[in-house]
Amino acid sequence: MKGETHRVVIIGGGFGGLYAARSLSSAPVHVTMVDRRNFHLFQPLLYQVATGGLSPANIAAPLRRILVRQRNTEVVMADVADFDPANKKVILHDGELEYDSLVVAAGAETGYFGQNQWAKIAPGLKSIEDATEIRRKVLSAFEQAERETDPKIREELLTFVIVGGGPTGVELAGAIAELSHNTMKYDFRNINPADARIILVDAGERVLAPFPPELSKNAHDELVKLGVEVHNHHRVGAVKEDSVIVKHEEEETTIRAKTIIWAAGVQASPLASKLAAATGAETDRGGRIITEPDCTVPGHPEIFAIGDMACYKHQGEHPLPGVAPVAMQQGQYAAKTIVNRLRDKPVEPFKYNDPGSLATIGRSKAVAVLGTWKFTGFIAWVLWLVVHLMKLIQFESRLLVLMQWSWAYSTFNRSARLITGEDYRQEELDDILNS
Amino acid sequence: MKGETHRVVIIGGGFGGLYAARSLSSAPVHVTMVDRRNFHLFQPLLYQVATGGLSPANIAAPLRRILVRQRNTEVVMADVADFDPANKKVILHDGELEYDSLVVAAGAETGYFGQNQWAKIAPGLKSIEDATEIRRKVLSAFEQAERETDPKIREELLTFVIVGGGPTGVELAGAIAELSHNTMKYDFRNINPADARIILVDAGERVLAPFPPELSKNAHDELVKLGVEVHNHHRVGAVKEDSVIVKHEEEETTIRAKTIIWAAGVQASPLASKLAAATGAETDRGGRIITEPDCTVPGHPEIFAIGDMACYKHQGEHPLPGVAPVAMQQGQYAAKTIVNRLRDKPVEPFKYNDPGSLATIGRSKAVAVLGTWKFTGFIAWVLWLVVHLMKLIQFESRLLVLMQWSWAYSTFNRSARLITGEDYRQEELDDILNS
Repeated sequence: MKGETHRVVIIGGGFGGLYAARSLSSAPVHVTMVDRRNFHLFQPLLYQVATGGLSPANIAAPLRRILVRQRNTEVVMADVADFDPANKKVILHDGELEYDSLVVAAGAETGYFGQNQWAKIAPGLKSIEDATEIRRKVLSAFEQAERETDPKIREELLTFVIVGGGPTGVELAGAIAELSHNTMKYDFRNINPADARIILVDAGERVLAPFPPELSKNAHDELVKLGVEVHNHHRVGAVKEDSVIVKHEEEETTIRAKTIIWAAGVQASPLASKLAAATGAETDRGGRIITEPDCTVPGHPEIFAIGDMACYKHQGEHPLPGVAPVAMQQGQYAAKTIVNRLRDKPVEPFKYNDPGSLATIGRSKAVAVLGTWKFTGFIAWVLWLVVHLMKLIQFESRLLVLMQWSWAYSTFNRSARLITGEDYRQEELDDILNS
Repeated sequence: MKGETHRVVIIGGGFGGLYAARSLSSAPVHVTMVDRRNFHLFQPLLYQVATGGLSPANIAAPLRRILVRQRNTEVVMADVADFDPANKKVILHDGELEYDSLVVAAGAETGYFGQNQWAKIAPGLKSIEDATEIRRKVLSAFEQAERETDPKIREELLTFVIVGGGPTGVELAGAIAELSHNTMKYDFRNINPADARIILVDAGERVLAPFPPELSKNAHDELVKLGVEVHNHHRVGAVKEDSVIVKHEEEETTIRAKTIIWAAGVQASPLASKLAAATGAETDRGGRIITEPDCTVPGHPEIFAIGDMACYKHQGEHPLPGVAPVAMQQGQYAAKTIVNRLRDKPVEPFKYNDPGSLATIGRSKAVAVLGTWKFTGFIAWVLWLVVHLMKLIQFESRLLVLMQWSWAYSTFNRSARLITGEDYRQEELDDILNS
């Protein structure tokens, strides 16, 4: 029975993989969703976990739960080791899976521009464990500062450097500023958390570079109001224990800080280079697979590479950005293409329909672009809230997250301010160090 | 200024320490609350975290937040290394604290009756990290079973042994039974989670031994209804990788199981033996400090030892049990005694006022004793819910936990089913192994 059904293997339960799987729910195929984690993670809200506003379970949902009613689909929790396209097999660390169609949507991880040793000092923000590690670092810095008697070290403990002025960097900087300047205002006896310096280091001309310039300006101003020091045109020369060396034109400055967070770059999952090696596909500088107009790997119409690990040159133009809507639409497209081919229907090239962009700045401000519409301030923030809540996969999460936010919003409280341990992070770190 | 104020150092932000600190809020003293974690943990609900029903932040609240309005109190996040009662100092790993009165409320950890090597295999349930470790183990066992082709190994993966028939063991067994037999019923394709065996091994004559016999009977029956195999009069002879050897009278049986959870015993925090060594106090078999009728350490009226790390022979009778109400009342008593002494008022011996006991069995059943009243079934469960929600320190937690439960209750869903990493646990484990 199974042998006769068209077998689709999907690697990765992120936005791309999940949307592919859901779009296949009523197709005459057997779907196997493979992920090394047992949950789908709503990455856009990770910065809220990193700053104690939400719990991991608020932004993660078990993959089995999401796909429980989809009877043609099974979920396999496993590590993918390699690909065998000649025999149409995915090699797992402890087994293998045969496929007729393969959708690889393994996502991206933090990229350090070849300076992987910086990963040990400056964590990125891609996983639950990254988020709890950042939370641990930020909260521990305040705890240590409270007990530190040397004013120089105390100052270093209360300096937080965020590298990268994209949405993640802006959202983190805003949230850390609010955490220290508002939420924890009265929590300490020997330090004043409002003295904390939050420094956003950005190599570009303006923060939120993909947004229209007036929105970047607005975001910049809001960050400054929250007490964030924004340094544009500053490149990171080196990340060391307790300091960052930044370069502005020819001038080098050392910023002494115990907490450094990396939001400056991503690189494709290591599975992208494995898939490229197995298929002869080319990759771009970020390690992303350069795909055909139908999102497949050149020479392998049965293998789709989608989302953050794929480089899709949209209608011959610039590659599409690594954002959730691209992954979702490519996932849906891959599913549709698989079904159309089974039915011998013609297949159009993938076409991206840009729904716009959103980024928050602190507690109640945001910037948004929707088509030709631009929004700032509270209205943009409400928009951001609605869009994100709508996308949270499970009803319960939406309701609970809304409640938690309402509470946090009206009281400035962030109840998930727990310092807990590190874990899977070590593994990820090793991955990055050995990449 | 500070030098003139009476300095109270409280070690431990559990029920005992926190109630002592809060009872001193308007006293003419300076309070220093020392804990190595930055949060108060509501331990009675840990089993909900271990089974994916609640998130860690639902049952933990930052100590600074709880004590933020108490201006005579500071919170210090630090590890206590030793005591110097002659000089009235607490030695920290990185400093020291002087006191005039000291309240030691460091609690208890899992005890393995001298077989500490079992800790590596069978985790206890005392910390957030224990809970997420158990959650990881239980959920991973199902994930592995789904992919296992050897029926013998699959059976081992689907066998869960809980050692200890006290409230923690009963609550865990009930919750794991519901998780596998209800919540995850339709989640898998190759296994039937309802086939999972949940085995409760109890050395005593009946589960929930401190409760009246008819309530033990009721709890036993409800567990069996949920599909738990209850083995009374069974002692654990050995815990090995993948198996437990149990003894019933003279007969030995081996239960093959990949997941073994230890809820059979506690022992006092290692700080109890350090305090005993420093003061010459005696300890009982569980390592608890045997205190005077006023909860102080013999010969040191300025040092209180309270809660789970203290052995208090109530009015010459049996020692008080290691439960939250004892710790709370002793904390309040210690605070009152410190204030009375400052005012040269007489001090009465501590007197415990037993408010009763509660334990849940699964989703909507419980047993409760309140004075001479006994409750079972749904009424007891509502009682349990109300009592626990009332005690959750922060308003937000109460509301969110209630919502989360309502949702989980009506849908059988447990949304916090995340497999995340281990961490602080290694440290705790080393502590236990070296103790």
